[in-house]
Amino acid sequence: MNAVLDAALRRWQLDGAAARGGSMLERLAQRDGTPLYVYSRPLIASRVAALRTEFPDDLTLLYAVKANPDPAVVGCVVPIVDGCDVTSAAEIAVALQAGAAGEALSVAGPGKSDAELAAAVAANALVVVESPNEARRLAAFAAGGIRPRVALRINPPFTLAADARMGGGPRRFGIDSEQAPQVLAGIGRLPLAFEGFHVFAGSGCLDARAIADVQQQTLELACELAPFAPAPVRVLNLGGGFGVPCFAGDAPLALATLGASLRALAADARRRLPGVRLALELGRYLVAEAGVYLTRVVDRKESRGRTFLIVDGGANHHWHATGALEGRRHLHFPLAVVGAEGRPVERVTLCGPLCAPHDTWAEDIVLPVAVPGDLVAVFQSGAYGASASPQAFLGKPAALARLVEWPARQPADARIATSPNRQQETEHA
Amino acid sequence: MNAVLDAALRRWQLDGAAARGGSMLERLAQRDGTPLYVYSRPLIASRVAALRTEFPDDLTLLYAVKANPDPAVVGCVVPIVDGCDVTSAAEIAVALQAGAAGEALSVAGPGKSDAELAAAVAANALVVVESPNEARRLAAFAAGGIRPRVALRINPPFTLAADARMGGGPRRFGIDSEQAPQVLAGIGRLPLAFEGFHVFAGSGCLDARAIADVQQQTLELACELAPFAPAPVRVLNLGGGFGVPCFAGDAPLALATLGASLRALAADARRRLPGVRLALELGRYLVAEAGVYLTRVVDRKESRGRTFLIVDGGANHHWHATGALEGRRHLHFPLAVVGAEGRPVERVTLCGPLCAPHDTWAEDIVLPVAVPGDLVAVFQSGAYGASASPQAFLGKPAALARLVEWPARQPADARIATSPNRQQETEHA
Repeated sequence: MNAVLDAALRRWQLDGAAARGGSMLERLAQRDGTPLYVYSRPLIASRVAALRTEFPDDLTLLYAVKANPDPAVVGCVVPIVDGCDVTSAAEIAVALQAGAAGEALSVAGPGKSDAELAAAVAANALVVVESPNEARRLAAFAAGGIRPRVALRINPPFTLAADARMGGGPRRFGIDSEQAPQVLAGIGRLPLAFEGFHVFAGSGCLDARAIADVQQQTLELACELAPFAPAPVRVLNLGGGFGVPCFAGDAPLALATLGASLRALAADARRRLPGVRLALELGRYLVAEAGVYLTRVVDRKESRGRTFLIVDGGANHHWHATGALEGRRHLHFPLAVVGAEGRPVERVTLCGPLCAPHDTWAEDIVLPVAVPGDLVAVFQSGAYGASASPQAFLGKPAALARLVEWPARQPADARIATSPNRQQETEHA
Repeated sequence: MNAVLDAALRRWQLDGAAARGGSMLERLAQRDGTPLYVYSRPLIASRVAALRTEFPDDLTLLYAVKANPDPAVVGCVVPIVDGCDVTSAAEIAVALQAGAAGEALSVAGPGKSDAELAAAVAANALVVVESPNEARRLAAFAAGGIRPRVALRINPPFTLAADARMGGGPRRFGIDSEQAPQVLAGIGRLPLAFEGFHVFAGSGCLDARAIADVQQQTLELACELAPFAPAPVRVLNLGGGFGVPCFAGDAPLALATLGASLRALAADARRRLPGVRLALELGRYLVAEAGVYLTRVVDRKESRGRTFLIVDGGANHHWHATGALEGRRHLHFPLAVVGAEGRPVERVTLCGPLCAPHDTWAEDIVLPVAVPGDLVAVFQSGAYGASASPQAFLGKPAALARLVEWPARQPADARIATSPNRQQETEHA
């Protein structure tokens, strides 16, 4: 069996004969229609609570809005974290509207526009500059005694072995560590308020020891660079990189291992960089497992010995769960036919509705026999789904999204009430 | 040198010392801002005219709206073609609004929703059914003596060796040819008006002989199936598959070869299937080369011996030109620094502004030395660009798009007036 799928079924109360979650998801699909993203406030809250338990008390936990910028999701996350990592004026706006303090925003990205720099300065956000040019462009926004707040993104000599490597070697991101002393001297001559360093060495890693190792190296690097900084290092943003198990065989991140290492690291940092606060910016890790994508079977057909199920949503809504599969044919996101317990199983290929061969959820997998009208749940769908997909492609309707107050930890609390700040009909257009 | 790039530079008048096209593109970028898609009405018109010259007179030429559903582009194409291939209610609407007759629409796709079927029937469009279930669902829309118009998509025993194979073997698309006689009998018992067959065996092919061969096989297949059809075959849609050269080494499709073969095929079809009209549905081939994407350099940086240029647009606007490059590192869309004639050249990596390593236009290529503010033109960008990209990703502004009356064939006609039906500010939201 697939442990990733098993955990998802438990999380959404779809395991066992009772399968109460199934009727809940079916009711949501009937109420709102499909395709539908469902995001769970209790699952987001319990994930953040678990991090708070493991992490050192003074760690700054930022939400990387890019993972899921749905205003309801941001509104759910902002009150329980310490700020947001944002990458555009629109993300700054959604974070502020969700109640984040402008000072609690960290603005990153390798090609910030003047409009983005202006929005960041207006919010009094911390701007993570990624090049010497950008530091000069930011300084041009200093006015009336206001010095824009700045951190320096460093391209470290190391990398995180993960889905996406973002440090080590030549990179578009950040300033090479060996160039940093000179750039820091330049920043000292500009009307900028220097606050610290940012290192993001990779994302999507499931190996706690590899992440801990990179975090340790990041502290070493910050200690080496601190003497060159024009002001004390108050912020050391360790980046993110926390992966979520998605494919069969993936094991969840050992959070306790990472927490222990971070507590030791924070103690070390307090000694070596007095007054510093460590920060982490996590997106996928906070919300991916708190989202499920619901889509209904539209057609079932046989072709030359193979059974195809066509569902009403696909790559246009959830690109990374479908189109990207070209390169990993026999891997697929965990998914289930809702309410199909006890049915015989069969081998099928599950496809989306687009006129495109890559619009495939899973090839040749074993599922309970499903027919048109059946509901399919795709798990691990809370991050990099709707907003990271080509929603306008083929002109199919955009997916709806709902933040719900379910599943709670206590079955007695289960209810599907839509979140109060999400009563209005909101679509991802 | 790269013949694909050379042809693009000539097409947009960017070749030679005068490089008049460069100042035109720069004026457009200054007028409308970047990132900007520019679509050329004269280039679209001359492409369609070339097809009309080569193709048999009675061939039905359909525009596959999915390639570029921008209302201005559809409005430009519809008056000079015979109808549209559409895949959603929104595509039906954009085609009708552009002046297409409902009867001239062909509605395809493997997972049509009830809403899509209803919209198709309301427009009296030809519905290309892809499964026996779908034929029954379509028949449910028959009412008051109105029989929905239907064609059967056949999954042939052959395929087109191309970017995307869509025929042969087990497929989600269409009905296996060997099942077709039985399905045709079933259609004869339903309240449907049968009109013909549709075969789409693959897309993105640059080999005219391979396409001609598949078209010939398609006619043979239609002749085999015609005796089983409940009515004479009036439409034989040969699909598309016409590729556009994009990467270094690609050669353009030999249109004259294909035209000669189609004329012979049409004569053959008239004899064997009296009253039949051949149809082709082309998207990319009509519009890809008539579009250019303009983006400005925001930053220039050195990292460990490598030079990076960061531009203001990327994978969020033009996914297939960037993100998809992961699998083809040293291939890239043809591109140029505008107005950089005579500058020394250098090796650079050209990146978009997203916090994502895959947001890369081209790795380690030779370009004239460029600095922030310079304009970069990415050619072959008229198809599967804006609408096929995750425009909401990271909350960056959507790309603007403009249909212009330039470049005309005669330099004297060159002007950048925005098309009359495109005066209003329209964004891809």
